[in-house]
Order: sequence, then structure tokens, then C-alpha cells
Amino acid sequence: MANPVLVEVTRGNRVESRHRGAIAVFDANGRSVFSAGDVDEAIYPRSAVKAIQALPLIESGAADAFGYGERELALAQASHGGEPGHVALAAAMLKAAGLDQDALECGAQWPTHGASAAALRDAAAEPSALHNNCSGKHAGFLAVARHLGFPAKGYAKPDHPIQRLIRDALESLTGAAHDTDDCGIDGCSIPTYAVPLTALAIGFARFGSGQNLTPERAASARRIFDAAIAEPFYIAGTGRFCSQAITAMKGGALIKTGAEGVFCGAVPNAGLGIAMKCDDGATRAAETVIANLLLALVARDNATLRQWANPPLHNRRGMAIGEIRLVEGVLAGLGP
Amino acid sequence: MANPVLVEVTRGNRVESRHRGAIAVFDANGRSVFSAGDVDEAIYPRSAVKAIQALPLIESGAADAFGYGERELALAQASHGGEPGHVALAAAMLKAAGLDQDALECGAQWPTHGASAAALRDAAAEPSALHNNCSGKHAGFLAVARHLGFPAKGYAKPDHPIQRLIRDALESLTGAAHDTDDCGIDGCSIPTYAVPLTALAIGFARFGSGQNLTPERAASARRIFDAAIAEPFYIAGTGRFCSQAITAMKGGALIKTGAEGVFCGAVPNAGLGIAMKCDDGATRAAETVIANLLLALVARDNATLRQWANPPLHNRRGMAIGEIRLVEGVLAGLGP
Repeated sequence: MANPVLVEVTRGNRVESRHRGAIAVFDANGRSVFSAGDVDEAIYPRSAVKAIQALPLIESGAADAFGYGERELALAQASHGGEPGHVALAAAMLKAAGLDQDALECGAQWPTHGASAAALRDAAAEPSALHNNCSGKHAGFLAVARHLGFPAKGYAKPDHPIQRLIRDALESLTGAAHDTDDCGIDGCSIPTYAVPLTALAIGFARFGSGQNLTPERAASARRIFDAAIAEPFYIAGTGRFCSQAITAMKGGALIKTGAEGVFCGAVPNAGLGIAMKCDDGATRAAETVIANLLLALVARDNATLRQWANPPLHNRRGMAIGEIRLVEGVLAGLGP
Repeated sequence: MANPVLVEVTRGNRVESRHRGAIAVFDANGRSVFSAGDVDEAIYPRSAVKAIQALPLIESGAADAFGYGERELALAQASHGGEPGHVALAAAMLKAAGLDQDALECGAQWPTHGASAAALRDAAAEPSALHNNCSGKHAGFLAVARHLGFPAKGYAKPDHPIQRLIRDALESLTGAAHDTDDCGIDGCSIPTYAVPLTALAIGFARFGSGQNLTPERAASARRIFDAAIAEPFYIAGTGRFCSQAITAMKGGALIKTGAEGVFCGAVPNAGLGIAMKCDDGATRAAETVIANLLLALVARDNATLRQWANPPLHNRRGMAIGEIRLVEGVLAGLGP
């Protein structure tokens, strides 16, 4: 069975392109509140689980030892655009841990933020690993390694103690086995484990609400959640969906994208977790689904979310030529 | 019924993303040689029909009147990268017709060719309509308008005599009605008409082979075909699939991409036409399908096509993390 069409891209009076996928909304006890498509299929969550991957940074004591505040904890769970503010903070996080960018194993990346990439080019400079969208996450990993006395070198490999701590956190939250025989290598070189959307949704329900977690872990999760809410610029950046959606929801939810059309999210007051994957990996479709989901679950009348939920499309002369829209009825049964 | 999965994107041992779509390979008499998915559904061919849209440029006598050679006829059917060579030739085409870039109604676009975009930025310059990937096509339209004494202004609108000539050519080749009530506005502001993949494949079988065309039209089509084969750089540009595939096939076929995952193509010696659309609009999938199709139909052992047919994927440190591949059996029955 094919997953349902979730999002349509129109031109004129016709649907030009279609995006299929699966959506899971679950509570912390594993009860399904909503699902569409095959939510039991294992997917790679990629960067959408960075908030959970940041738990060892709190729980090891490294964040406190190195004086990391909300900005640093936001950047540690970010896929940032490589803007100067992101780059400077990643460098400061490394410096606080007695390291520099040479310790990063994520690889160099041109900033995805256009003006920041242009500024680098204007200066005849090359991007470094600090510009990599995952540099904050990697700085957090290195801080844990330094604080616990693990070797920094090789921290991105699946068998390094840092990656084991992260895998333990992911397994504990999601309740799903994270098997090194069923993992891929992420864009930033760390392992990404294949797990079902259901497990990811349950994991984020627990992460956001603290339910079924020890008080200590619930407090750590809450600190990571609150950091994202307080500093949304450091989660993604200027003009980006994650930053704008987190701001729009005013603390009501945390959402985070991953490459290839993935999103995870937590809606603490409702005790819910969200996980979705667009079959074809399209970000435009995944953002449309999540914006509509958040309108239904959290922020019914928010103007920013409404724009992301149904964006108009324009051509090179600014003529309105179509739109991206949720397929009617896809979220039926969820919200009013 | 959902269209079949044509292309898989893998990471580790697992398929991470999937692309569905439809493929039609027909002869000039409307006989199906191969099809996958719903080939009767109407789609917008976008830039994939530029070769047919160039017929009035020859048939009006404008190309000869303004001294256009193979380079100009290639650029008139191109989606080019905005490289200096493309921009200079588009400007020269306009100048020969007594016009300049102010006559273009395609809108400005940053070059898709990275180094050319960077060079513009370095010069603190803005892109113009000459950098628009369709500037050669629009220059050709304007040349026809000048030669036939039509007003240049408004040439992109559906009811302008130039667009009527183009629509007549498309209808005649494909045998499908091109209805202004079932058309969208393209990125470059001209109409794009919704027609079935079958009709597009038949149209390109006729275009490439000359079958079922008048001798005059067959000769015009051959001249456009030969121009693309002779000057593939002017069809797309440095590093681009269309240019590399046309070069690799050594005259055996013409293929051309359109936005949102569309391709059309002609294989004259076999008397065949090709049309495909990836449901979700993904270029990576459409290129993979076409490369495999060309390996089966035209150039069985070509190394360049083999690279495009099954590209490896690397992360930001250059580690091999997966591949893009055709789903096994998708082209079964076509070729050996």
C-alpha cells in the first residue's frame, strides 16, 4: 500500500506535483491520537532528533561545567543556517570546552543562509566546519567528551562512548531498539538509526511532557525544550520555518526538521509527540504538513503558521502561478 | 492507483526516500513501446517541449533572416545555466533582431551555474533577464515577432500571435488539444499546457524521426535536433545532465528537462519519443530514469550515462553514504 498523498503543488487549475508520506501523533503511553500512512515503517530521523541527542549534554553535567545557557542549548539541537551569530556561538562553545574547530568531525559546509554565504564569498573566504548546520550539536558532543574524559577524536563514530550515550538516550525515550546494523551515516558523519515513526512520536511525547521519564531526565528534557523556545533563532535562523514556527507557538510546541522530509515535535500541554516523513524527501511538503498540524493542535489562528500552511507560488516576474496546499481531509479528525 | 516507485534513494542498507512517476515511450503512429504508470494523465511539460516551441523560429524564416546558426538554435531550445557564453549569445540574438534585453518578458534570474552567480556577486552586479534560463527561447520568440511584424510587447501572453503559433505547433506534433482553459503560467511567464504523457511521447517521436510530418516541417525539426546535438553546451551548460547526456549519445537522441521532474526526448533511429514525469517533481529521480532509459535505448555502454544512472551519494566529509538507483525491473522489457 502506498502512503497517502499529503500535499499538492498546483499550477493554474491543476495539481502539478504530489507528495506522499506518513504522519504519527502519539501520546507518551503509546496511544495513537492520529496517524496517516504506514507509521510502523522505520525511517531515518536525521536531524529531527537533535533535541533528544542533546540529553547527555545536560545529564553529564557538561552544560553546567562549561557555562552553557539557553543559546548554547538551542544551538546544540539546531540545524542552523551558518549565520555569523551561529558560527560565533559554536566557536565559543568549543572554546569553553578547551577546544577549537579543528576538533569538529562534521565537515565544512557553505551556509544555507544566502546572505551569509555571499558574505563569505565577498571576503574570498571558504566555509569551515563551524558553518556546518550541525556545528552546535557537534560542539555539544565534544563538550560531553571533554567533561567525561573521553577522547575527542573519533567522537562521531557509532562505537565511541559519546555516540553510545546518545543511542541510549534515543532508545530509552522512543522505546525502540537502535541497531548499528540498521543505521546510516548522516550528512554530518554521525550515525542515524532507522526507527518507526510511532516510536519517534512516543519519544517526543515523553520528551515534551516528562511523562514516563525519571524526574531527572524530565527536568533535563524540559531545559532543552525551554532553550529552544527561548532562543528560536539558534534552532535554524533568519526566515527559516523551524525558527518562525517555534516563535509563533509561544512555548506551545517544539518542532524540528531533518533532511529528506522528516519532522519531529513535542506538544507538552497536550502530552503529544509528532513524527512525520515525506516519502520523497521534499522539505516543501513536510513544512506544509507540520504547519497545518500545529494550527490544528496548538495555534489555531496564528498568521505566521497560516502562511507556511498554504504558501502561494510566484514565478520570476512575481506572477501568482499556484500554491502548495494540504490535501483536503488529510488531517480530518484532528482538531476542529 | 498510485504510479509505481521508479527511483530509490538509499542510505546505509535501507531505502530512505522514494520517487513515483510515469514513463511513456511511443512511436510516431501512437504505438506504445513501453509505459509505466498513468501515461494518460495530463501534465505540464514546462521546459521539456522547448524544441517543439522553436519550430516557428525556423518555419517563419526568422532564423535565416537574422543569421542564426546552430548555437542560436540550441540556445532557443535551452534551459541554460546563465553562464557568460549563454548570456552573450542571448544578447546577440536579440541584437540581430534589432532588440535588446528590455524586450524580454521572462524576468530576471540568478544563474543556476554556481561560478557564474558568484562572479556576478563579486562584480556587485544583479542578474538580468538575459541570465534567465529561458532567455534564448524568449529571444527566439522575439525574433519571430520582429520578422513577422507582430508587436514585441506582450509576446508571452497566451493570446499573442507568437504564442498561437507555438500552440499550433505543439497541437500539430502531439495531436493533443492545447486548451488555454487548462494551462498554467510557466516560470518564464509563457503558458504551459496540460497534455498527456502519451501525446508528448508521440510528438517527440514525430519531431525526431520526421514521420507523419510534412517534408518542410520534418526538415525544420531536424535542423533544431541537429543544432542541439552540435552545440550541447547551449542546451544547459557546464556539468548539467542534459548537456552531458546529449554529448554522450553522439546524435542518437535529444533529451530535455522541464521543471517539476519532467523530461521529453526523441530517439530518431528507433523512431521513438520519450516523455516522463516524476509525481513529486524531483529532478534527481527524473535524471536517473532518463539516464537508464537512454542506456537501454541508445547508448548501452556509455560511461557518462552510467554515472548519471546510478549516482553515489556522499556526505560533507566525502564519505559514501548511499546511492540513487532505478528500482529493479522498472524498465523490464525495454532493451536487453
